Amino acid sequence: SHATAFQGAQDRNSQLTKPPGALGRLEDLAIWYAGWRGNPKPQINAPQVVIFAGNHGVCAQGVSAFPPEVTEQMVANFEHGGAAINQLSKAFGATMNVHALSLDTPTADFTQAPAMTEAEVVSALQIGWAAVDPASDLLVTGEMGIGNTTSAAAVAAAVLGGDAADWTGRGTGVDDAGLARKAEVVAKGVALHASSDPLEALRCLGGRELAAMAGAIAAARHCRIPVILDGFICCAAAATLAKAVDGALDHAVAGHQSAEAAHARLLTALGKEPLLSLGLRLGEGSGAALAIGILKGAVACHSGMLTFAEAGVSAG
Amino acid sequence: SHATAFQGAQDRNSQLTKPPGALGRLEDLAIWYAGWRGNPKPQINAPQVVIFAGNHGVCAQGVSAFPPEVTEQMVANFEHGGAAINQLSKAFGATMNVHALSLDTPTADFTQAPAMTEAEVVSALQIGWAAVDPASDLLVTGEMGIGNTTSAAAVAAAVLGGDAADWTGRGTGVDDAGLARKAEVVAKGVALHASSDPLEALRCLGGRELAAMAGAIAAARHCRIPVILDGFICCAAAATLAKAVDGALDHAVAGHQSAEAAHARLLTALGKEPLLSLGLRLGEGSGAALAIGILKGAVACHSGMLTFAEAGVSAG
Repeated sequence: SHATAFQGAQDRNSQLTKPPGALGRLEDLAIWYAGWRGNPKPQINAPQVVIFAGNHGVCAQGVSAFPPEVTEQMVANFEHGGAAINQLSKAFGATMNVHALSLDTPTADFTQAPAMTEAEVVSALQIGWAAVDPASDLLVTGEMGIGNTTSAAAVAAAVLGGDAADWTGRGTGVDDAGLARKAEVVAKGVALHASSDPLEALRCLGGRELAAMAGAIAAARHCRIPVILDGFICCAAAATLAKAVDGALDHAVAGHQSAEAAHARLLTALGKEPLLSLGLRLGEGSGAALAIGILKGAVACHSGMLTFAEAGVSAG
Repeated sequence: SHATAFQGAQDRNSQLTKPPGALGRLEDLAIWYAGWRGNPKPQINAPQVVIFAGNHGVCAQGVSAFPPEVTEQMVANFEHGGAAINQLSKAFGATMNVHALSLDTPTADFTQAPAMTEAEVVSALQIGWAAVDPASDLLVTGEMGIGNTTSAAAVAAAVLGGDAADWTGRGTGVDDAGLARKAEVVAKGVALHASSDPLEALRCLGGRELAAMAGAIAAARHCRIPVILDGFICCAAAATLAKAVDGALDHAVAGHQSAEAAHARLLTALGKEPLLSLGLRLGEGSGAALAIGILKGAVACHSGMLTFAEAGVSAG
């Protein structure tokens, strides 16, 4: 059972040739991973990076430094291997899949109407769920969608409370005037679609790629595949699950703390300590993909090291 | 030239398909690496991890939670592939070499006499210098030596000033009484061997593995091989170079901040911001080896990504 694997991993960890606790968070990570995989001596052989792309009607409000056509251009870049996430997936031995979600049909501008219909949000959740390979042993969900830090800020504000301005950052790099406009747009959307239901917040304020990430993270839970969360947008999508079901993100760690202003606040709300903090703010799953190396290193130490008895080392 | 490569890497970075600065520190790392390698589009194909082991006469003062024979036992563990650093080297594609330095002849107890003669410290420096493969493209230096956090604390206090207690931590895990005794031992050594010469501090208070690490880091500089510094002991050895020659560590980044109490202070003194902070305190080069993945990811993005023009993406 998984509890047995968790206990077995703890026992094993205490016998490895190192002072107790000397591998710090790597020890906790390996034991956590072993528990979810139901194997006290696991390996990471098949990480999967899944990228979802969507377009946002709220771009009409002038919230991004880039034009909406960049979403589709970047999808082509992913498919041709030219983006950061391609290099990181390759560097850490992950397969990478890209799902472009109805790019020609942006969501509705959430300052005017719900971003998605029920059918649209359910479809995106299902695409996300189906995108997870049950044979993979680690999942990173990434996204691309011009305008989606605005959408994510609105989802976070609706689900977690607080002022719109506290959840609004510069995204790809808007100036001060753009930032102020963005916060107003977020506040307007949250006021228009007030609801205590996190999935309703996802529908009315989110986007297809956010819903698909939530679906994928839920599918990974079902398959007991551990997840590395990426930055602000991924965590906003994940927050809807955490709010809907207690412990829904217990199978997930935070890959990094992004430079997007509100990500630290979001990680705190989720109770997640980031593995990395290197000032990334790219999305695409890039920060989480970088953290695959950390988790691989943790599991490699845990499962590959000899015990004091095996190595003939005095245990102090 | 290297200046040309640095400039070329900066130019390239500004054209890659991402918002400016969105890869955070990864961008700085890649440009720094490109400059040292003299290649605006470099690759990391041959990282080398070199471990030096030494024994310490100061163990007679009861400064460690482990007995001195563990140094030799752990060298055997390295040679048989059972230690953490073996797993991490393998996980990040690094070769690993182990040099046991006169383990049967510990240094002198520095509370009584200089730890090494001039011939001994020069020999250790030379072994370190010769251990670096000039064909490698990244260096991690690690160490094993029961008692060497005491030695490193004394070197740091002598070279950088401040109270012995500020540089003294729990190492492999001494209790409060052990910690107090350790600080007294450090203070006694520093008082006995007062000198403003960093290499004299290395000789009188250091150990063979510390001197060898200093030699290896200097050799890497000569070969323009970038270095990832490990924890407290590695950084204490490196500090003697920084104190001897301004900018002697410009080819080095700090791989991580260790849980050893004084490492944060030491990194500040060296002006190095750590890449990782995951509570490791194992030595062996483990924290630096884990950071190989970060540097590989940075260089992979820099050299593998397409430019806006190549990918046909609008630059905003």
